[in-house]
Amino acid sequence: MSTNAPDPTVPTPAGFVLVPPGLAKVVVTDTEIGDVRGDEGFYHYRQYSAVELAEKVGFEQAWHLLFHGHLPSAAELDALREEAGRLRVLPPALAELLPAICATTGDSLQVLRTALSAWGGITGQRPLYDAGEDERLASAMAAAAVTPTILAAAHRLRLGLDPVPADPDLPHATDYLRMVTGRLPADRDARAVEQYLVATMDHGFNASTFTARVIASTGADLAACLVGAIGSFAGPRHGGAPSRALEALDEIGTPDRAEPWVREQVARGARIMGFGHAVYRTHDPRSEMLKAVARRWDDPLVDFAIGVEATIERVLAELKPDRPLYANVEYYAGVVMRLAGLEPSMFTPTFCVARAVGWTANILEQARDPKIIRPAARYVGPPPPQPVPTSGRMPLPA
Amino acid sequence: MSTNAPDPTVPTPAGFVLVPPGLAKVVVTDTEIGDVRGDEGFYHYRQYSAVELAEKVGFEQAWHLLFHGHLPSAAELDALREEAGRLRVLPPALAELLPAICATTGDSLQVLRTALSAWGGITGQRPLYDAGEDERLASAMAAAAVTPTILAAAHRLRLGLDPVPADPDLPHATDYLRMVTGRLPADRDARAVEQYLVATMDHGFNASTFTARVIASTGADLAACLVGAIGSFAGPRHGGAPSRALEALDEIGTPDRAEPWVREQVARGARIMGFGHAVYRTHDPRSEMLKAVARRWDDPLVDFAIGVEATIERVLAELKPDRPLYANVEYYAGVVMRLAGLEPSMFTPTFCVARAVGWTANILEQARDPKIIRPAARYVGPPPPQPVPTSGRMPLPA
Repeated sequence: MSTNAPDPTVPTPAGFVLVPPGLAKVVVTDTEIGDVRGDEGFYHYRQYSAVELAEKVGFEQAWHLLFHGHLPSAAELDALREEAGRLRVLPPALAELLPAICATTGDSLQVLRTALSAWGGITGQRPLYDAGEDERLASAMAAAAVTPTILAAAHRLRLGLDPVPADPDLPHATDYLRMVTGRLPADRDARAVEQYLVATMDHGFNASTFTARVIASTGADLAACLVGAIGSFAGPRHGGAPSRALEALDEIGTPDRAEPWVREQVARGARIMGFGHAVYRTHDPRSEMLKAVARRWDDPLVDFAIGVEATIERVLAELKPDRPLYANVEYYAGVVMRLAGLEPSMFTPTFCVARAVGWTANILEQARDPKIIRPAARYVGPPPPQPVPTSGRMPLPA
Repeated sequence: MSTNAPDPTVPTPAGFVLVPPGLAKVVVTDTEIGDVRGDEGFYHYRQYSAVELAEKVGFEQAWHLLFHGHLPSAAELDALREEAGRLRVLPPALAELLPAICATTGDSLQVLRTALSAWGGITGQRPLYDAGEDERLASAMAAAAVTPTILAAAHRLRLGLDPVPADPDLPHATDYLRMVTGRLPADRDARAVEQYLVATMDHGFNASTFTARVIASTGADLAACLVGAIGSFAGPRHGGAPSRALEALDEIGTPDRAEPWVREQVARGARIMGFGHAVYRTHDPRSEMLKAVARRWDDPLVDFAIGVEATIERVLAELKPDRPLYANVEYYAGVVMRLAGLEPSMFTPTFCVARAVGWTANILEQARDPKIIRPAARYVGPPPPQPVPTSGRMPLPA
């Protein structure tokens, strides 16, 4: 396979810098939003452990923290809840357009991408470059708030059901589950999904976050940045597909099947979905937290998943001793979401409900930087200029 | 204004690389598509001067060159014309959706972004990662071919007119003009617009091209990449707004007003639209070529524009002797497009008709690279982990 990664044997033009392929470990920006420490199995939002936040605070508190840099006071929390509730309501023009968008063959991320792009036009999003801090913050709140409503409505429309309008008085996570399923969720279900959402709002400088920030650096409107992030997030190399690990569990079926299944997968060179991570070299802290959440259910799926995890980690340690392969966020996310009443087609959309907050927080931070992110490429094709042939083979227009 | 550009005084973690802010002059990839040599005032597609191509070949020939690396044989040209003509026809589901998209308040780039995102769903675009070279090429052809049809239809819908269906037998540029205006254009008009389109198909590693390639590097679908590129292109720092220079000419009004106008603009620190370029340190070769195209018209606008250009360049050389400020591509682009019968609201969309080819050519090249583009950020906020407070100020969910 050919590759476009810079060829180290080709001389680099004077004044240009050659860096590792894919910009790996190249620092593009400073951030105050958070970080992932892969060797330690630790990640944080601002100055707090993200796992501890997921254990202790609600969606709106984490949202305030990511946007504003501090946990909210009671008054700030009330204000954010009121604003988010109001902004969860679909703008009427978008509610009208959504059935037509959902009638296409696109998957849920394609639908969200199109709907948020249309939302940008409907709400008259101006370039970040022209908007002040207050207008940008209002845009970011609105986009993150309306994302669950779009996803829930799209889900129901595609099932032939009427969308359930937002209830501005409910907590964000609770209302999302209600808009998806059509009924007020049990507290345990709502809190489990909320904890998953808090734990996945942000995760360092991943590819979708970088995409959002590249677009933001041109001064484009907030919808443009989000739509680009969703595009990158859908890329298989980005890695987000929480339903795959649960599909593997379903395929394994019974505990005794786990060991032959994983040996067979490794033998034919297949990736084990739900295991391994680009950054973590030890246990994924999100997986550990979600395992604890899953244990609140007295359900055979939980014991089965825990048993299969132990088997797969043991076999992978034997077969691939050089690579640290532990359960990643996908593994227990699917278990928790199924237990909380979400079907697999809603796993990736649910992830987007959380990440909409992280993406917009990053867009807001990038918008304060006046510098465009614009690297360079080296031309390595045949040397120009060669004269354009004007033979009879190539009829010229008048 | 705060900035997120890496602070050179903050220590960089071991193993990470600190580079100039905004990745300026950092080589991300090797490319065989083309390059811009700012000091020489020269740019090229593959091994040919882009200006010479614009002078000598048609849109379809340059399209073939950018996609395949060589100018087409007569048979290859026929095949591309046939395929492009067929693919210019709007898919019925998109034709149905477009009026609803155009009914929103979005500008033309927001409409194109939403429509191409929907096109991705309607045509069932699969991740580039899953598609082979042939499927990716077919997707790229289809997206670039349908772009003018979307833009022309959107324009007419917003004027309350019926869209004009594509005529697969016409050359791409001619059919675009026809779909916009509703009548077959004169040869001079069609060829002038075609030359503008060939000259603007690609232009080095600009921000929208980089965005397309970042998204492509995740393995996402082709529509996701294009939609991200359009998002970046709309950013004011990207710089594309060919109507602004013509607006300035209209504002100046008469030749004697040029000198006081430019002095006044400089005195109040305003940027002179249509002058200066991020990369060119001498005359913009696109501007020179388009000036020659404009001279085919015996129209007072042409002499006026040439006179104003000379005045503005003279005054800028006096007032800003350290900065090379010459007419850029926007300056004569607006003049040529007006002479060819396009109104200013169609200048940016017309640019997108051309750039759709360059963006998709870059997506195809990036798709052959197995490496994701994913740089890093440095966390510079308050040190974590600090314990999450659990005071009464912050009510916890159940």
